[in-house]
Amino acid sequence: MNKTFTYDQLMQLPGRYRGKLLNKISGVKPANLIGTCSEKGHPNLAIFNSVVHIGANPPFLGFILRPTTVERHTYENIKATGTYTINQVTTAIHEQAHQTAAKYEKGVSEFEAVGLTPVYQEDFPAPFVTESPIKIGLEFEEEHYIQCNDTRLVIGKVVRLQLPEAVIAEDGDVALEQLDSVAIGGLDSYYKIEKLGRYGYAEP
Amino acid sequence: MNKTFTYDQLMQLPGRYRGKLLNKISGVKPANLIGTCSEKGHPNLAIFNSVVHIGANPPFLGFILRPTTVERHTYENIKATGTYTINQVTTAIHEQAHQTAAKYEKGVSEFEAVGLTPVYQEDFPAPFVTESPIKIGLEFEEEHYIQCNDTRLVIGKVVRLQLPEAVIAEDGDVALEQLDSVAIGGLDSYYKIEKLGRYGYAEP
Repeated sequence: MNKTFTYDQLMQLPGRYRGKLLNKISGVKPANLIGTCSEKGHPNLAIFNSVVHIGANPPFLGFILRPTTVERHTYENIKATGTYTINQVTTAIHEQAHQTAAKYEKGVSEFEAVGLTPVYQEDFPAPFVTESPIKIGLEFEEEHYIQCNDTRLVIGKVVRLQLPEAVIAEDGDVALEQLDSVAIGGLDSYYKIEKLGRYGYAEP
Repeated sequence: MNKTFTYDQLMQLPGRYRGKLLNKISGVKPANLIGTCSEKGHPNLAIFNSVVHIGANPPFLGFILRPTTVERHTYENIKATGTYTINQVTTAIHEQAHQTAAKYEKGVSEFEAVGLTPVYQEDFPAPFVTESPIKIGLEFEEEHYIQCNDTRLVIGKVVRLQLPEAVIAEDGDVALEQLDSVAIGGLDSYYKIEKLGRYGYAEP
């Protein structure tokens, strides 16, 4: 039995119910930790389920930033320092990653609070997550203010990329299943992945 | 053994290698089919791995549109008619969904070419995919031109939503695992999902 909602019916749902429903309908999402550093050098870490591929030539990634307290620290640090990191979440650290979404008091590092380890690479200012197998260093590139609901698309250029050599295939493909990458459903559900197949470039 | 790439090293990689590598590093992505209709009434269907949650109040979804032939038909139809549909890809239809990425000749409907069935709901102009368990009808809301690489963020308002009543929990959560939703890795790898856990709102 299908349930159909019109726009008016969606808007009449209780806010939390609508939030949970709407966060699930677009399918599973990537799980990444964004690491930043304040101007004073305090590390910050927050989970994001909205990282999106923008392009490979040159390499750009984007993410959607909501007007929440937790995400605002990330934004302020990116704007102040011009750099941030995106770090892959795996089955081994997904519960700690989820816990970074909590509103910790000012001055508390989410790294310490959840038990993940910041690591710095050469002179890159933003902290990477030691426990993440894919570590991406980015420089802020451009942002777009989304008028309909006061959110932002933030885009960065990939200036550093580190991952295990063993999972990179000869053609550049990466075996995410060997890294135990996880997917997020909605705001609080986590999934492990199992490969169905790889189908190549589709031809008519 | 980790492999580290600087920006210059990434840019010196062969284009296809860099494309495959960069499309994988952000983790697994949602798999959705976007259905549109031309002004003349011809249905069009294309797979997208970039649908992103923008907000729930009111309900908005976005996706990234690249300057390719296949995706341009989707864009032209959205601009011409103001409406489109987003349809969840499951294990049962993921190979057909992938095949919609092929460059079919003008006038060929991807629905027919890959064996999926268009279905219309009341007076909504864009076609839904019968075989998709989650069917979302959207009205174009706003778009942002991404200067760094000539792509676009397209945002639509959810004006219709249809899904099986049995997978909606009392609090609005949706059991994506019961729907056999798939995740995409890069451009051509597909994964099935298995639930690890649901952790609720994170508290310090």
